[in-house]
Amino acid sequence: MTAVAEGEIAPVKTPQPPYYAVIFTSVRAPGGDAEYNQAAKRMSELAAQQEGFLGMEHAEGEDGARVTVCYWQSAEAVRKWRENAEHREAQKQGKDKWYLRYVVRVCRVEREYGGGF
Amino acid sequence: MTAVAEGEIAPVKTPQPPYYAVIFTSVRAPGGDAEYNQAAKRMSELAAQQEGFLGMEHAEGEDGARVTVCYWQSAEAVRKWRENAEHREAQKQGKDKWYLRYVVRVCRVEREYGGGF
Repeated sequence: MTAVAEGEIAPVKTPQPPYYAVIFTSVRAPGGDAEYNQAAKRMSELAAQQEGFLGMEHAEGEDGARVTVCYWQSAEAVRKWRENAEHREAQKQGKDKWYLRYVVRVCRVEREYGGGF
Repeated sequence: MTAVAEGEIAPVKTPQPPYYAVIFTSVRAPGGDAEYNQAAKRMSELAAQQEGFLGMEHAEGEDGARVTVCYWQSAEAVRKWRENAEHREAQKQGKDKWYLRYVVRVCRVEREYGGGF
């Protein structure tokens, strides 16, 4: 994957807060790149099809550390995506073999400001 | 900067929620790398000295897109850091010359889970 979701230019344009952000920080386990990249691409596409999806930002360093932030309209949209059957299977594989370590943080975005748009 | 804060291995270990996350997504303007890198290093060090600082995660892609997440104990700690005089000067320079675009999102972390620790 590139540093931003395909076709996207970071940062994502999000609505007036409140909305939700899911921060996924991970360190990849070595190996399995082809399989992992395919699954990551599929999950990006699948997430984008879900109700309440607002966008995704992603960056990764050369040392395997990566930060992905997914934005959602509501806590309910976050919950539904977490429970999506195909996503659950990917989560299981991630836990079993793709990630050395990971943390998922579910956040309510309270304020937003920026520049350069 | 490398993909994680100096001496840190991502992801950061954070306390039981609630706590705060500030997501800073940006695209660097071309040029000024030496000055920018020095300022970014200084801001990482300065942030880490503030009361309520919990840790920082950072990753950047080859295309200049980057995601930095800074974790804080409270909304009050976030506010104080935003108003820190030296940080305000860096924010001004960032706006004026270092970033093409950026968004800052202040978030209340409600839930956290992970694996591999």
